[in-house]
Amino acid sequence: MRYEPIDSMESPRFSGIKTFIRLPYVEDVKNVKDVDFAVVGIPYDTCASFRTGTRFGPSAIRDISALCGKPYNPAYDIEIFKYCSGIDAGDVKTVPGYVEDSFDAITHGMSTLFENNIVPVAMGGDHSMTLPELRACFKTHGKVALLHFDSHYDTLKSYFGKSYNHGTPFYYAAKEGLLENEKSVQVGIRGELYDKSDMEGSLELGFNVIRAEECHKIGMQAIVEKVKEIIGDTKVFLTFDIDFLDPSCAPGTGTPAIGGFSTAQALELIRGLKDLNIVGYDLVEVNPQYDVGSITSLAAATLMYEFISQIAYRKAKEVN
Amino acid sequence: MRYEPIDSMESPRFSGIKTFIRLPYVEDVKNVKDVDFAVVGIPYDTCASFRTGTRFGPSAIRDISALCGKPYNPAYDIEIFKYCSGIDAGDVKTVPGYVEDSFDAITHGMSTLFENNIVPVAMGGDHSMTLPELRACFKTHGKVALLHFDSHYDTLKSYFGKSYNHGTPFYYAAKEGLLENEKSVQVGIRGELYDKSDMEGSLELGFNVIRAEECHKIGMQAIVEKVKEIIGDTKVFLTFDIDFLDPSCAPGTGTPAIGGFSTAQALELIRGLKDLNIVGYDLVEVNPQYDVGSITSLAAATLMYEFISQIAYRKAKEVN
Amino acid sequence: MRYEPIDSMESPRFSGIKTFIRLPYVEDVKNVKDVDFAVVGIPYDTCASFRTGTRFGPSAIRDISALCGKPYNPAYDIEIFKYCSGIDAGDVKTVPGYVEDSFDAITHGMSTLFENNIVPVAMGGDHSMTLPELRACFKTHGKVALLHFDSHYDTLKSYFGKSYNHGTPFYYAAKEGLLENEKSVQVGIRGELYDKSDMEGSLELGFNVIRAEECHKIGMQAIVEKVKEIIGDTKVFLTFDIDFLDPSCAPGTGTPAIGGFSTAQALELIRGLKDLNIVGYDLVEVNPQYDVGSITSLAAATLMYEFISQIAYRKAKEVN
Amino acid sequence: MRYEPIDSMESPRFSGIKTFIRLPYVEDVKNVKDVDFAVVGIPYDTCASFRTGTRFGPSAIRDISALCGKPYNPAYDIEIFKYCSGIDAGDVKTVPGYVEDSFDAITHGMSTLFENNIVPVAMGGDHSMTLPELRACFKTHGKVALLHFDSHYDTLKSYFGKSYNHGTPFYYAAKEGLLENEKSVQVGIRGELYDKSDMEGSLELGFNVIRAEECHKIGMQAIVEKVKEIIGDTKVFLTFDIDFLDPSCAPGTGTPAIGGFSTAQALELIRGLKDLNIVGYDLVEVNPQYDVGSITSLAAATLMYEFISQIAYRKAKEVN
Amino acid sequence: MRYEPIDSMESPRFSGIKTFIRLPYVEDVKNVKDVDFAVVGIPYDTCASFRTGTRFGPSAIRDISALCGKPYNPAYDIEIFKYCSGIDAGDVKTVPGYVEDSFDAITHGMSTLFENNIVPVAMGGDHSMTLPELRACFKTHGKVALLHFDSHYDTLKSYFGKSYNHGTPFYYAAKEGLLENEKSVQVGIRGELYDKSDMEGSLELGFNVIRAEECHKIGMQAIVEKVKEIIGDTKVFLTFDIDFLDPSCAPGTGTPAIGGFSTAQALELIRGLKDLNIVGYDLVEVNPQYDVGSITSLAAATLMYEFISQIAYRKAKEVN
Amino acid sequence: MRYEPIDSMESPRFSGIKTFIRLPYVEDVKNVKDVDFAVVGIPYDTCASFRTGTRFGPSAIRDISALCGKPYNPAYDIEIFKYCSGIDAGDVKTVPGYVEDSFDAITHGMSTLFENNIVPVAMGGDHSMTLPELRACFKTHGKVALLHFDSHYDTLKSYFGKSYNHGTPFYYAAKEGLLENEKSVQVGIRGELYDKSDMEGSLELGFNVIRAEECHKIGMQAIVEKVKEIIGDTKVFLTFDIDFLDPSCAPGTGTPAIGGFSTAQALELIRGLKDLNIVGYDLVEVNPQYDVGSITSLAAATLMYEFISQIAYRKAKEVN
Repeated sequence: MRYEPIDSMESPRFSGIKTFIRLPYVEDVKNVKDVDFAVVGIPYDTCASFRTGTRFGPSAIRDISALCGKPYNPAYDIEIFKYCSGIDAGDVKTVPGYVEDSFDAITHGMSTLFENNIVPVAMGGDHSMTLPELRACFKTHGKVALLHFDSHYDTLKSYFGKSYNHGTPFYYAAKEGLLENEKSVQVGIRGELYDKSDMEGSLELGFNVIRAEECHKIGMQAIVEKVKEIIGDTKVFLTFDIDFLDPSCAPGTGTPAIGGFSTAQALELIRGLKDLNIVGYDLVEVNPQYDVGSITSLAAATLMYEFISQIAYRKAKEVN
Repeated sequence: MRYEPIDSMESPRFSGIKTFIRLPYVEDVKNVKDVDFAVVGIPYDTCASFRTGTRFGPSAIRDISALCGKPYNPAYDIEIFKYCSGIDAGDVKTVPGYVEDSFDAITHGMSTLFENNIVPVAMGGDHSMTLPELRACFKTHGKVALLHFDSHYDTLKSYFGKSYNHGTPFYYAAKEGLLENEKSVQVGIRGELYDKSDMEGSLELGFNVIRAEECHKIGMQAIVEKVKEIIGDTKVFLTFDIDFLDPSCAPGTGTPAIGGFSTAQALELIRGLKDLNIVGYDLVEVNPQYDVGSITSLAAATLMYEFISQIAYRKAKEVN
Repeated sequence: MRYEPIDSMESPRFSGIKTFIRLPYVEDVKNVKDVDFAVVGIPYDTCASFRTGTRFGPSAIRDISALCGKPYNPAYDIEIFKYCSGIDAGDVKTVPGYVEDSFDAITHGMSTLFENNIVPVAMGGDHSMTLPELRACFKTHGKVALLHFDSHYDTLKSYFGKSYNHGTPFYYAAKEGLLENEKSVQVGIRGELYDKSDMEGSLELGFNVIRAEECHKIGMQAIVEKVKEIIGDTKVFLTFDIDFLDPSCAPGTGTPAIGGFSTAQALELIRGLKDLNIVGYDLVEVNPQYDVGSITSLAAATLMYEFISQIAYRKAKEVN
Repeated sequence: MRYEPIDSMESPRFSGIKTFIRLPYVEDVKNVKDVDFAVVGIPYDTCASFRTGTRFGPSAIRDISALCGKPYNPAYDIEIFKYCSGIDAGDVKTVPGYVEDSFDAITHGMSTLFENNIVPVAMGGDHSMTLPELRACFKTHGKVALLHFDSHYDTLKSYFGKSYNHGTPFYYAAKEGLLENEKSVQVGIRGELYDKSDMEGSLELGFNVIRAEECHKIGMQAIVEKVKEIIGDTKVFLTFDIDFLDPSCAPGTGTPAIGGFSTAQALELIRGLKDLNIVGYDLVEVNPQYDVGSITSLAAATLMYEFISQIAYRKAKEVN
Repeated sequence: MRYEPIDSMESPRFSGIKTFIRLPYVEDVKNVKDVDFAVVGIPYDTCASFRTGTRFGPSAIRDISALCGKPYNPAYDIEIFKYCSGIDAGDVKTVPGYVEDSFDAITHGMSTLFENNIVPVAMGGDHSMTLPELRACFKTHGKVALLHFDSHYDTLKSYFGKSYNHGTPFYYAAKEGLLENEKSVQVGIRGELYDKSDMEGSLELGFNVIRAEECHKIGMQAIVEKVKEIIGDTKVFLTFDIDFLDPSCAPGTGTPAIGGFSTAQALELIRGLKDLNIVGYDLVEVNPQYDVGSITSLAAATLMYEFISQIAYRKAKEVN
Repeated sequence: MRYEPIDSMESPRFSGIKTFIRLPYVEDVKNVKDVDFAVVGIPYDTCASFRTGTRFGPSAIRDISALCGKPYNPAYDIEIFKYCSGIDAGDVKTVPGYVEDSFDAITHGMSTLFENNIVPVAMGGDHSMTLPELRACFKTHGKVALLHFDSHYDTLKSYFGKSYNHGTPFYYAAKEGLLENEKSVQVGIRGELYDKSDMEGSLELGFNVIRAEECHKIGMQAIVEKVKEIIGDTKVFLTFDIDFLDPSCAPGTGTPAIGGFSTAQALELIRGLKDLNIVGYDLVEVNPQYDVGSITSLAAATLMYEFISQIAYRKAKEVN
């Protein structure tokens, strides 16, 4: 059986129960076959240091995603659902206010996907969620390269004296041995820091860092080349913090930072990396309470649609 | 099999695919048994004379309904899902921009419910949708009394030279012989009119009218008594236009009118009428683009939850 | 020639150039005859002590007024334009940032109406504008009773060391001898004060004060009787500050105060006073930047429509 | 030394650093004398079950409070700062995402006030914060009666399998022996429940419950009498959840419930209870992201101003 | 007689009845002479496939246009009203909910302008309106080249089984023989499609397509050259869908698509094409309910002001 | 004593009394030593020609500034508070509605800073405020070069017949002899004008003008070079109107103009000019009522943080 979106010619895109790009909702992935990817929500914001509200991110992304899930993506010249089958797996059942229980739930939910050979496309949720995702990823795939688009390093050791927070996930991912640190890249980082040493934190972990100023200077094609060179054919987990985008493009987020990127730049970058061996994706930090006209959610949904297009593109490459 | 909401102690109310009060989504009601009621969305706004946007009403009501679907309703002392089973049947597939095709789709969708002995709780959508609903109702139940809460009569003969518009449904319902006109009541009507004859229009059709000024003067308990006396034990279709409420309580609607009612008054009124023989419900004209903090959608969802509570209450009466 | 609104059956209410309830726009009232009332905007907020933005009040009221200008008002059983003719006279040309020049412009604009025997229905704008309006009124009508609905006294002597401000108009109106002080009434005043003496300020000027707590206690009908007794058949200028309404009904204003009145209460009060000899009206302090779903502007427009209905009602009384 | 607000005649109310009603900010209360009350913010939302964001509540309340802090309150005929002296003590340093650390910080911060004989007026923040406040209160005052205005019981035993959550504080307060349970009253409770037993939970703890329907039926004066009779001269901690108010008056909150109360009703109720022996106050669940025109924050600030007026009123009673 | 905007030095730009850039409102163009261009609103959204609400587009554009109508445009070094005279012709009287009647009204309204030798600058409204506009254009000008800025092709054959929809106008315009298909250009198209064949649809009709990715790659000056080469001196109808702009610049629209263009890019493009022989303009799909700070409406108004500047520029060229 | 921000690791950034980047609030700068810079608010909007509301600009900037005040700025490789000490000096006490009194207050407030050898970083407020600031600057520094980022010239002679308005400050600054006119530069000017002579007004005063079109064409690095060449080592006052940014980046302002600049471009420009001898800064025209997700305030706060970083950078240069 193929899982694909409802035909928008038959029922208007604004109607019906809201799943991601109108994919079938399948609650228990263990009972299904032939699923190549699954979109899963992680409605969690307990680890946010400033604005809360990303627990409503998955719902907002689903709402607007009807606008961007058409089956043919000319950027990859791909009829997506000819080459792959996908579902909306609903949301992980987090425990609001309780960090470790929620992390366990996230690791559990993601493991089910990885173990069933389904590529996860997770949507958040605050960025701390990527740590338990990577724990799940490691169990199936071993160490992976981190491909990290963000305006922040997120490699602090602690925040308010606590280890787990949306500013710390990659410090712990590296320390727990989940990553190929030297193959990992952080792109788009910008803005001020608590301390000069924060800047060195990522480098000390072995990560490669391409700051925003450099991106603006050399352009997206050059960044694509740099990233491809670093990562090569290592397995990759791609995590995209929506605040990589400029606040004009993504006002609906928790810790926006000016000097960011347009959606055209983001698309150019993501599309350029389509041949990487990406085993999992997430898109985090969408906070609909601060959005306007759903443009942040739309950017998130469209980028996730690009992720799905890539999965289909790579499937098609295998086939053809 | 019993259909009831997801347990909010197990997964947080903000998570998961959004159905009405987290009821199971069942697309094809013909394949299910033991369903007492079905919530169905009618995302339609082609017939709106002023603000459009009610096509997003069902989605907004589903989103906020998680906040108001707990299983025990003390107002009726009823554990709802002990006495009845219900589903979210999704949305009718309307044809945006095309009136008669959409009406046919609505009549068809509602007929399926009526014919399967399921009490529909429809959510709109502009008020024109009640006409095709009543056509469906008639096929199963014959003539019914209309119990109509609104700030407008909606009994114009035409608008911009056209018969079908959200200002005309009850003129046509009466003329098509779908209603027990003399048993029908319009409550809460207020505001100015195009012409003095508009005021007489409803009376000429035989409807009973209780204007807002009278409601404010004599109080809700007295209105309850008047309505019960008029309707008696006739079968009833209850239609609730959210602009019955004051704009302070329901800013998110297309043609708000000041001098309306509080939600406390609406609850008192609806609860007082719980023993009527109501065979179908709708709640219309929720327009989320003009809402704040989802209070209009919440009022709509809570009133629909009251409708469901009544269905359970009457089931329980039969049993006990 | 009769001036009346465009027929909404012919062109939809959301279309066309926005004048108040779609009345004809007549720039120069000296050239017209048979005009009974004129709506005029005073887009002025230089005298606001807290939030600015009421300069956009007239525009917002015009935008939403299409929703509430139907020709028959059942509350007075009156076909308005059978008995009177009215126009939208546009806006007074204020001088933003300059108090006295603006006051002169307001006095000049209003005088033109009074002198042409046209009842003005002004819309603001901050409440300081009523002082220059009363100066104009005095030139034609001599001293009038002030009928003042508000949550604030507005009878301070100065603010930040300056005489003219939206907290001071009625002190100066009284001191300039424009009012029948003992026949004047302030209704709905509530909330805290800079000093106990502020409370006595209005009383020392001779004004009658009915505070909000009393209104809530004795009800609107009793207030109607009190006001009628005080004013009798004296000529009246009615000024309505939208913050008389509760913030739930009128969030779009500069200095909201909780514990206010519903629109149903305001309508009951205004309608009860229809037989007073009112020679001019204004409605002030609508600030659309803080509004939701235009409910504040709608309340303002509907109250102004009631003022117009009263003008017609009194015309009809003369005739019949 | 007397601590009182900045004079608004000297500097406009919209200017300056934002403290509650422009009171002096005093960071360390141990170093000050002659302080009768202190406003303190608890920017905490980790325990919210639905919408997060109340961590911005204190900031929003401070912003709008400039509008409602004038020194004379006619409702008590009291010149507040003639009889008492007060400060803004800033915010408790919570640990976002970590419940028990935050509870400890809250207990610590509140204890400092209680121990220095300062009446706290806390502003939240989600309702779980009242539990650590009561722990602090107990250390100084022993058991107190709880006077609780809310639409929810907040006496669940657990939520998502966890003890501490904004739905559980009063279960634990009662179980920890912090309250005079039989002298405690919950007012305004309404809406549906997870289970019929939830309704009995409060009663089993010994609390008195006056549900919303009863309030609407018998009126605020009767409620005042009932509450006074139950509590008598026992020491009281008053906690006010802003969702006691109707959503039309307080859209900016996390779990709104229709059928609530107007601000006029709340003022009548609060003022009627001014002679109770209240040793601490809080006002919780203001969530500015869902507000409009700051009306929710304004209602909160005005109610807190009423609390302060009561403190002054009781001081004045002692003196006179 | 010359028709030109009100002088903003005499009356502030925020005041007065709102016409486009404060031009005189002339209802019946048959009675006027010396009018070179007319702005006309088409408040129509019946054909929208996703978000409705563009019926309020013309009103929103008029409101903000006061900010951008100054008489001298340095980009063309032109004192506009020295070379041309223009009016606001109000709105076409559409029939909400009824497609063909509305199309007839639009064709009729536009024909009146074309026939009186007035260049129309229409503002919408959903994009289906361009089809009846082109029917009117054809009657006066014969076949014209279409110059189409958009993120969507709008060349579907049907939608929900219906011919007329805002996704289909240019299929029918081409099929009805209204266009010089081979001289027509679509610029800025991007995003995914229902089917690969959608992409070929425009090409099959003979249209030239310059997709967004190419625009970003080669830059606006190169696009200008390509367009000029294709069109040459053929008569042109220019249609600008506001979703050509990136959602960051134009959130207020019905079907936004990321990866779009900045307003600086749009200005560069439009200005580069000033010498084309453009006989009519429209600007469509402004939906103010989704806008912020009126930036979408401002972009629309400024682009329309550029269109007017071009008309003046070409008039000046003729003269000089 | 060093004045520096609160440590965000100790108390969360969303908590506490809101000062600019959590700097200490010092009301009276005469009593402090070792202060290098002071942030000061000028909550003034009486001179706005279109939208009012910038009086709430300083408060909004303070609120969001917690997000952008971390102590290390990698763009300058500077640990800011190692090299300089700064405070939030609160707001100047303006007189709302009264221009000259407010100007005197601004000149007085700024003089106190200049005279105490403190570099002011003022935040507005409408742009007229820069005139009284420059009067204060002149008293200490004599004539300075104006470095002016804006979309408007602001060199009109009068507006509505009045000299002082936010469209006129630099005409008067030049005429009063406060500026080195030939060393002054206006960058980013764009859009239409009342008259061609407006364009020549700045040139006649001797100012250098770099229009937006040129900026877009030659790029920010080239502009940096041009500005450095013009100004050399002359003392500079830098004034930044937030409408220099594109409306997509700064919707929250009074007179937005399309075709503007991204925040990345603004940062590149500002950072390039770090070696200029800048003696005072302001950032004006932030109007939070039109903002979304606080992105305009965040851009303002971040730019002000850059100004502070420059002050530290130049201090460090002196030391090292």
